[in-house]
Amino acid sequence: MQSFDIDKSDLLRIKTALNGSDAELQQVLQQYHTSEIAILFEKLEPDERERIINILPAEEASEVISEMDEEHHPAELLANLTSEKRSEIVEELDYDDATDLLSQMDESDQQDILREIDQEDATNIRALLSYDEDTAGGLMNTDLIKVNGKLNKNEALEEIIKQSEEMEEFYTLYAVDDADVLLGILSIKDIIKARPMVRVEELVKKDYVYVKADLDQEEVAKLISQYNLTSIPVVNDDMRLLGRITVDDIIDVMEEENTEDILKISGVSEDEELSGGWRDAVKSRLPWLIINLATAFLAASVIRSYEDTAAKLPIISAYMIIIAGMGGNAATQALAVTVRRISLSDLTDRQAYMTVLKEALVGMTNGATNGVIVAGVAMWYDANPILGLVMFLAMTGNVIVAGLTGATIPLILKRVGIDPAVASSIIITTFTDCIGFLLPLWLATKLLL
Amino acid sequence: MQSFDIDKSDLLRIKTALNGSDAELQQVLQQYHTSEIAILFEKLEPDERERIINILPAEEASEVISEMDEEHHPAELLANLTSEKRSEIVEELDYDDATDLLSQMDESDQQDILREIDQEDATNIRALLSYDEDTAGGLMNTDLIKVNGKLNKNEALEEIIKQSEEMEEFYTLYAVDDADVLLGILSIKDIIKARPMVRVEELVKKDYVYVKADLDQEEVAKLISQYNLTSIPVVNDDMRLLGRITVDDIIDVMEEENTEDILKISGVSEDEELSGGWRDAVKSRLPWLIINLATAFLAASVIRSYEDTAAKLPIISAYMIIIAGMGGNAATQALAVTVRRISLSDLTDRQAYMTVLKEALVGMTNGATNGVIVAGVAMWYDANPILGLVMFLAMTGNVIVAGLTGATIPLILKRVGIDPAVASSIIITTFTDCIGFLLPLWLATKLLL
Repeated sequence: MQSFDIDKSDLLRIKTALNGSDAELQQVLQQYHTSEIAILFEKLEPDERERIINILPAEEASEVISEMDEEHHPAELLANLTSEKRSEIVEELDYDDATDLLSQMDESDQQDILREIDQEDATNIRALLSYDEDTAGGLMNTDLIKVNGKLNKNEALEEIIKQSEEMEEFYTLYAVDDADVLLGILSIKDIIKARPMVRVEELVKKDYVYVKADLDQEEVAKLISQYNLTSIPVVNDDMRLLGRITVDDIIDVMEEENTEDILKISGVSEDEELSGGWRDAVKSRLPWLIINLATAFLAASVIRSYEDTAAKLPIISAYMIIIAGMGGNAATQALAVTVRRISLSDLTDRQAYMTVLKEALVGMTNGATNGVIVAGVAMWYDANPILGLVMFLAMTGNVIVAGLTGATIPLILKRVGIDPAVASSIIITTFTDCIGFLLPLWLATKLLL
Repeated sequence: MQSFDIDKSDLLRIKTALNGSDAELQQVLQQYHTSEIAILFEKLEPDERERIINILPAEEASEVISEMDEEHHPAELLANLTSEKRSEIVEELDYDDATDLLSQMDESDQQDILREIDQEDATNIRALLSYDEDTAGGLMNTDLIKVNGKLNKNEALEEIIKQSEEMEEFYTLYAVDDADVLLGILSIKDIIKARPMVRVEELVKKDYVYVKADLDQEEVAKLISQYNLTSIPVVNDDMRLLGRITVDDIIDVMEEENTEDILKISGVSEDEELSGGWRDAVKSRLPWLIINLATAFLAASVIRSYEDTAAKLPIISAYMIIIAGMGGNAATQALAVTVRRISLSDLTDRQAYMTVLKEALVGMTNGATNGVIVAGVAMWYDANPILGLVMFLAMTGNVIVAGLTGATIPLILKRVGIDPAVASSIIITTFTDCIGFLLPLWLATKLLL
C-alpha cells in the first residue's frame, strides 16, 4: 500500500458512499486501511461513524475504534452499538485498548459489556480496570509471549509460534519460571541460533529495564525514550510478569502529555478537549481568567497610587503600557525555555544558578536594546530627553525582572513540587505588569515632576 | 538491571571517581548503562566528559555519544578526541547516528574523520550526508535485514542470522529483488512457520507503509504514530530500498518538534538551544521583541489619540490595562487550543467554522463574567455606575475579539501556508491590546464625557 495523506477527495468519496447502499459503502471502505478510516472518522458525524462501524467486519471495526483519538469519543460510539455488535468488537480488541475504552464508559454500560463478552476476556479486562489509567498498569497489555525458562530450543520455538498466532508483532520475548516470575528477556535471534538442547534460561538476557505497575505513565515514556526500547515489561512487587507496554502506546502518551504542556503554559486546564464543546471550554478557562483578573487589579492599584503623576504627565500612559507589555513578552520567552528544559531533565543547583544568571544577562541586553528604541521615540517624537532616560531605565529594568522571574519562578515551583507549567505564567505576568507600571511612574515622579 | 533514576548520589560518585585514578573511574563506570552515562554527562563539564569517553571501550563510548542530547554537543566532544579514538568510535556507531554527528561538525573535521575511518563505512556515511537532516533520508539507517525474494526458508533464516550479527533488534525484515527493489515486508514468525521449500516472495506482506527519502521528518513521525509502526522502509523513486527509520529515532523527533512548538508559541526562535549561552538566546529572542515593540507602539497610538479622555478621566488608565491584559490572556488560551488542534490534524471548512463559533461563545461567556466583576468594582469602589457599564461592555467586547482572533488567525495562517505557531501570538496580542484600549476609551468618550 502506498503511504498517503487523507485529503478532501477521500472525505468526499466516503460522504458520497454514505448516501448510497451498504454494498457501495462497503466497497469504498475496502480501499482504506483501518488507521485511515479512523482519521476520516474525525470529519464525520456520529451517526455516520456508527453506520460504518456496523458495516465493517468486527476485526476491522475493532481496529478503527482502537485507532480513534480519545477526543472523538470512541467509547461513546462503542456503547451505542447493539449488544451483539459491541461484544464482537470488544472481544477482538487488545486487552489494553478494551480497558481504555471501558474505563471511559459509565458504570452501567461497562458492566453490561463485561457480562456480554467471553468470560475469560472479561476477567482479563477487569484485572486491568483496577489500575489507574495514567500508570504503567493502566497502559500495559497482557497479550505477550512468555516461555518457561526450562524449555529447550524446539519446545520454546513451538511455544512462541503458538502464542504469536494472534499477535501482529511480538516485540520482546519474556522468560519466566513456574510462578510467572520474570527471569529475563529473550531475542528470537538467539533462540534460532542456539544449539538444540540449550534451555531458555541459558539464553536469557538479565540486563533489562522493567517497571512496576504503579509507575506514572510519563516516567514510563521517559524510560522508553532514554533506553531506546520498543517494549518494557511490567511486574508486581514479587517480580511476577503482569504485562508489557509497547512503544506505540508510549507515542500516544507523548502526544497527550505535549498537548497538556502547551495548554497548561497558556492557562488552559490540562484536560480541556481540543475539539470539545464551548461549555467545557468555559469551565476549563474561566477559573484561570478570574485568577488573572485578581492579579490585574493588583497591577492597576500601582497606577492608582501614582494618580498625580499620570495627571501631570498624561503621555506616560502610552509609554508605561509598552514597558509592561514588553516585560510580559520577555518573561514568556524565558519561561518557555526554562519550563521546557526542566521538563526534559532535572537541573543541578549549579545549572539552575547558571540559568538564572543567563536570563539576567539576556534580559539586560534585550532590555537595553529595546530601551534605546523607546528612549529614541521619547526624545525625537515627544522631544523630552528626560522622559527618554526614564523609559530607557524602566524598559531595561523590567526586562531584567522578566528574565529573572521567567527563570526563577519555574525553578522554585519545581523544587517545592508544583507543576511549573501550570502556575508560572500567572505569577510572572503579575510581576512584569506591576514592575512595568511601577518603574516608569516612580522614575517619572523622581526625575520629571 | 533495575529501572532507576539518576540522582545526586550517582553524580557525586562519578565526580569523586573523576578525581581518582583511571582504574577507579573505570570501575564506577561499569555500574552504569550507557544511556545512564549519557544522562550523567548533562551534569558534567566538557573535560570530564572527554576523560570518560577516552576511558570507555569504543563500543560503549559510541553508545554514550549516540545517546547524548544534541543540546550537549556530542559532535564537539567527538571532534576533540585523538584521531585514533574518534575513528574507533565512529566505526562502532550506527550509520544514521554517525551521519547525524558528522553533519554537526565543520567541513574540515568531517573530512578528516571520513578519511581516517574504514572506507566502506565512509562511503555509507557520505551517501547519508547527502540528505537533508530533517527528512526521511536524514533520519534513516542503512543497517537493516533484507533477503532476496528467491531464497527458500532455510537460506532466508541463514541470511537473517548472518545479517543480524551486529544488530540489537531487527524490527521488520525486508524482501527485495535482484535490483534491491522492495517486494514487501516479512515477519520472522511466518518464516519460522513456513514449509521448507517455500520461497520468501510467497511469504511477503505487500500491504505496508513506506516513505520516500525526501519526506519531512514530521510527516514520517505522523505515519509511524498513525499506523502504530515500529519501523518504516525508505525507498527512492524506483522503489529501491535505501534504508529504514525505527521508532526510537521518531521518539527523538517528536521531543524535538514539541520543544520547537512550545518555543515558537512563546516567541522564541525554534532553534534556540535550551541550555545554550546567553548570546545565542539574545540572537534568538531579540528580533521577536523588536517586532513586538513595533506593535506595542501601535497600541500606544490608540491611547495617544484619546489623550483628552484620559486627561478628563484619569481613573480610566487603571481600568483599560485590565481590559487589554484580560484580552491577551483569553486570546492566548484560544490560540493554544487552536494551534495544538491544527498541529494534530487538519480541519475541514465546517470544523474550522465551528471552532470560530465556539471561541466566540466562550469569549462572550468568559468576557461577560469578568465584565460583571470589573463593573462591580467600578460601581462600588469608584461609585460610578456608568463607568461600570463602560467596563462591562469593553471587557465583554475585548474577550470576544480575543476568542475570535485566537481561533481565526492560526486557521488563516495555516491555509496560506505560514506556521501558525510562529506568527499567531504577535498578531493576536496586537489585536487585543489595540481593541483593549480603544473600546474603554471610545465608550468612555461617548458615555461619560
